[in-house]
Parts: sequence; C-alpha cells; structure tokens
Amino acid sequence: MAQVRTYSSRPVLTVNLTALADNYKYLAAKAGGARMGASLKADAYGLGASVVGRALYGAGCRIFFVAHAGEGKILRTAIGPKASIYVLSGNTPQDTAIFFGSKLKPVINSLTQARDWVKAIKDVNHPPRTGLHFDTGINRLGIPPEEADIFASDKALIDALDIDLIMSHLACAGDAEHPLNETQLGRFKKTASRMPMVQLSLANTGGIYLGPKYHFKLVRPGIGLFGGKVTNTPDKEGVKPVVELHAPVLQIKAVKAGETIGYNASFTARTDMKIAIVSAGYADGLPVNLSGSDKRIVTSARLGKHRVDVIGRVSMDYTILDITNYEGFVELGAKAVFFGQDLETQSAHAKMLNYEVLTHLGARCRKIYVNE
Amino acid sequence: MAQVRTYSSRPVLTVNLTALADNYKYLAAKAGGARMGASLKADAYGLGASVVGRALYGAGCRIFFVAHAGEGKILRTAIGPKASIYVLSGNTPQDTAIFFGSKLKPVINSLTQARDWVKAIKDVNHPPRTGLHFDTGINRLGIPPEEADIFASDKALIDALDIDLIMSHLACAGDAEHPLNETQLGRFKKTASRMPMVQLSLANTGGIYLGPKYHFKLVRPGIGLFGGKVTNTPDKEGVKPVVELHAPVLQIKAVKAGETIGYNASFTARTDMKIAIVSAGYADGLPVNLSGSDKRIVTSARLGKHRVDVIGRVSMDYTILDITNYEGFVELGAKAVFFGQDLETQSAHAKMLNYEVLTHLGARCRKIYVNE
Repeated sequence: MAQVRTYSSRPVLTVNLTALADNYKYLAAKAGGARMGASLKADAYGLGASVVGRALYGAGCRIFFVAHAGEGKILRTAIGPKASIYVLSGNTPQDTAIFFGSKLKPVINSLTQARDWVKAIKDVNHPPRTGLHFDTGINRLGIPPEEADIFASDKALIDALDIDLIMSHLACAGDAEHPLNETQLGRFKKTASRMPMVQLSLANTGGIYLGPKYHFKLVRPGIGLFGGKVTNTPDKEGVKPVVELHAPVLQIKAVKAGETIGYNASFTARTDMKIAIVSAGYADGLPVNLSGSDKRIVTSARLGKHRVDVIGRVSMDYTILDITNYEGFVELGAKAVFFGQDLETQSAHAKMLNYEVLTHLGARCRKIYVNE
Repeated sequence: MAQVRTYSSRPVLTVNLTALADNYKYLAAKAGGARMGASLKADAYGLGASVVGRALYGAGCRIFFVAHAGEGKILRTAIGPKASIYVLSGNTPQDTAIFFGSKLKPVINSLTQARDWVKAIKDVNHPPRTGLHFDTGINRLGIPPEEADIFASDKALIDALDIDLIMSHLACAGDAEHPLNETQLGRFKKTASRMPMVQLSLANTGGIYLGPKYHFKLVRPGIGLFGGKVTNTPDKEGVKPVVELHAPVLQIKAVKAGETIGYNASFTARTDMKIAIVSAGYADGLPVNLSGSDKRIVTSARLGKHRVDVIGRVSMDYTILDITNYEGFVELGAKAVFFGQDLETQSAHAKMLNYEVLTHLGARCRKIYVNE
C-alpha cells in the first residue's frame, strides 16, 4: 500500500468560504429587498464564528446574532466595531459588563430583562441599543402576550430601551403548510403595530423560503448560510454544501471471514475483507448512529471517486470502512469524506437534525478554511 | 418571581475533581496491584484534559493515553515532563515534530508506523520510547496477526523501537459473557510471549471489571474515571458521577391550554401551564432526542429538589421545562441540572452511548471544576 504524502492523524473540518458567500447571496436574493443578518450562535454552528463572521462581513453583512454575550465578545473582536451584534438570550445580570465592553445589543425577551437593562445603563454613556423579541407562538424565549401589553403602554420604558429592532421567531418555518406560520405572522404584525417604527424581523432560513410576506425589513438566516436544508422540499433549496469532515486513513488491513469488526463485535465479516481504519469518530461529530452492523449498513463515506460502507461501531476516535473492492485505490493518509453534499442524508440516517450534527462537528478537528 | 442572585446565560459544566479522584482510587482498588493509566482522549472525554490531567497526576497517575499528538502536546504542557504520554493513533508523518517536542510516546499500530518511526528517530538524541499495540480481535487500529509475525522475528526493528509497553484493546469488555474476551486474552498472551518483557496492558474500564486475568501490569481506564458505567450490570460499578450540565432559567412564562410549545409545535399544552426556558441546548450537548412531544415525555431535569419534564423540542440554545406544579420554587437564574447521577439513563433515553454524550458536553459551557 502506497503512502505518498504527509498527513496528520488529526481529522480536518473544511469550511468553504466561497460556498458560504454564495449561500449568503442566494438567500439575499430569495429575501428580495430585505436586509441580511446572520445567526452565528454556537460558534457559527460549529464552523468557527470568527472566520465565518469575517467572511460574511466581507460579503456585506452588518447585522449578526449570537446566543450569549461571550459569543458576541469573540465575534466583535473578529469583525471590528462597525456591525451590530445582537445577543438572543438577552441581558443577564452577570454578563452586563460584556455587553458594554463589546458594544453588544441585548435582545430583550421579558419585562425583567427590560427593567434590568434600564437599571444597568442608568449611568452609562452611549449604551448599546436593544431589540425586542416578542413570543408570537413558539412559547420559548420572548416577551409573552401579557407583557407585550405592558411594553405597549409604557412609553418611558420603551424610550429608555432605545429600540432599533423588533423581532419574533417562527416555530414551524420549515413546513410551509403549517397553520402556525400564518398565526405567528398575524400576531407579529399586530404587536409591531403597537410599537415604535423600527426595523422588523421574523424570518430565519425557513422564513426566507416562506416568501415575501415573512421577510419584513431584516431576515436572519443561520443554517442556510452553512449549506443546511430546512424545508420539506429540500431539492428546491439552492444552497451549496459548506462543510466536510475529512478523516485520514491510518491503517489498511485484511480481515478473515468470520472475524468480527469493532466494538461489541457488531459487524461480522461474511467473506475475507479489506478494511480501512480512518481517524475520526464521535468525538469529531460522527454520530454513533452511523455505525454499520450485521443488521444494517447505515451510511458510506466518500473515498476518492468511490463510496465505501461504514462498518462496525463508530468509536470515539476511529471509524472503519469496507474497502474490499477498492483496496488498490486507497493509500495511507487518504481522506474519507463525510457530510458535505451528504449532510442531510447522513443526518437523517443518524436520526439527528442536520443542525445538531453541524454543531457537534469539528470540536477536535483542525479547521481548514477554503478560500479564506 | 424572585431573582435573587447574579447569573450568566451561559450554561455551566461542573466537573467534580473529588469524585474523579475517588473514581481513580476505586478503579485502582478493583485493578488490584496493577498500575493505573488514564485515557484522556478527546479533551478527557470533553471534561478538559489539562485540569483533569493535573488532577489525576495529583492522585498519583503517571501514565496517560491520548488519541492524537496535538492532544498529547496540550496534556504535556499541563502535567509537566515526568509522566508518560502515549499517543494511541501512533506516529503519522506530519506529527513527528510534536512527538519529539513534547516527548510523546507513539503507540505503534503497524509495520508502516514502526518503520516510519525508526527512520524518523535516526539522528535524534534520546527519542521517546514506544508502545506496540497488537490487534487481537477488535479489527480496528493495531498490528494485525500477519505483521505480528514480522515484529516477532525482526530483532533489529524491535531494538530500534525501544519498546516499554505492549498493549491490546478489548472489543466487548462491557459484556463479561462475551466469548471474544477470552479469545482476545489468549491471543494477547501468545503474542506478548514472543516479544521483549515489558509492561503489558489490555484492560480499559470494562477490562478492569472483567477481573484479575485481564489486568496485567497496567490498566488504562477512561470513562470509568469520569463516572461512566460500561457493563451490563451497572449497579455493581461503584464509580461516582463527575459531570453535571447546569442550564440557568432565563424566563418563566404561562402557556394557555391548546397552545403549542417549541419548534415544530411538537408539544401541546393540554391545560394552562407554567414553563421555564433554560439556557442550554444541543449545542451544549443536550441531545435533541431528549425532546418531549405529544407522543412522549422522554426525560426530566432536576430543578432544586424537584424533577421537571423536558417538553417541546430541545433547540440549539434553549430547552423548555414544565414547572406547572413547582412555579413557586423556581426563580430566574436557578439551575436546571442534566446528567450527573442521570448520565446513564439520560444517555439511554437519547438512544446514545454515555461516551458519546460526554464527549459532546460542554463545548460551549463555562467549565467549573469543583475542588480544583
């Protein structure tokens, strides 16, 4: 077996910044005249918020969303002072200093957060502006209807908050037929009509696909930027794959018929086989549910031009591939590729959301940004 | 609703170093006179290899295992020059400099790795010693039988490798009745008998529970140190929980009967409810499979003295709890607790290995080490 190039045992996550920028443009076109924001929570869904943030800034994005103040601080350092960074969890007592230090805008989700913020900014010069997030039916974070009445009637509070965004979040945007979409749309319009005239935002990636009624002034895709499909008609979503997991081949070996392969002896060789042990496992985000057992082969990896089955249990650091028919093509250090164009199918095979798979990818990987 | 203390929206992973040290002692006692190694792959299964490494070093551990050279480098910086750090993936061409720079011992898994290493150390003063890993039936990484013959007959190669460890890895250690255990044990003894007399190691955590025959000179537990159960008689495993995920309550709200909760409207309130939105989701390692839907409540969180159901879909950053019966007890910033004593049941409910759950925990969390 040849070994033609240098390689590390450490797996690689490739993030294609050209595809990212293309997805940004594609979603912007879908969103018509709406401004584009970008949701870069959870380290940009695991892709690396700093580099992804700079790339999107380069593509023209000036409005970003993160979940926590700490995420905002990291993003601010990466993209500089000019863009807006909203923190979706809102202000929490311990994080106030980060909001001020990194000029982060809290998304206010409750009367408590609103009052805490007003108290916190009392003696602060030029505090960040804020967004208001109204819960229109997801029944998760956000100002509930009974508090919305108080916001609507408390002009002093609204003035003190210095709002520049009113938003809500859709629960069922991936399903265009779901009646909750229209319900949330109606509630959002009604609530917004009682508030100051600032920019409105309702649409995540799924909301963009729901059409112009849902776009308002600002859309804020997340997973679509990263190539993820979100609707029940994924073929109509024109985003490109952004992320691949590359697992180098560490060893190639023969297994005799009757031997078992991997943990729990869950796969039995029915004939003499050739296998490749590749250096990525569930610690790198490859779900154990992709394991191939005697009962069922669940998925395959791409290895050069070929597709090779995943056999045996995916373990923490290693995964085993059946290269019986392709041995001559495989060399040490060759890269087995997971996800990329297969993100949706492999996530489905793992019985996981593509979102969940993305966020678990690459924690241990070397990240290589293509076209940075 | 009260708000009595300061808190951040960022979730916390607590790692109890006293419990870790207790588990180290417990497993050492189970292993009788064998030396204790520690497997700290994948950032110590997500717990933080530097702090965990220092704690185990303090408990007396002097032999560590990691998967990649880069992991070894980080661990070396944390624990200083005296302990042995073995790299289970072995030497790969691009990583050689890291082995030398951080005095890491490659675990040699193939003739190719052996020959590459001998070439690499040719002009190096005092190169690290090495381990040999023989594949005795897991059919994953490791020297296969046909190559073992070559190692056994090539005295010059063995001398050049300067071996101080011979090891193998069990495929079915969690199942004491599995015949592969005895098979691997027999093959390991036979292979070792043809090699220089250095310390032998076969047992991971499960191997320790298999009894003295499997202990040899060195055992090398991983998950047991971190409180994970591995056998099909978990009640007999005396390890203590080490890790908890603490998700702060960001909001408490009322939901009217008939409203749906969370993404995809997968949970419907049958009566008027009170819910708490807590700040941890699948980006923090809380599996989406723990979501509670109309069909089924899957799990609960601990909130003070109470257990409260997880309802609706676990989302990237937030999870929703039913606190209808406990509203008076819950305040903003209160911590909903996942895992800890529930690691095994919650992993099972998520249809995941406890190993897999552990490694996904805490990527975004603030880590708090108890009794550091």
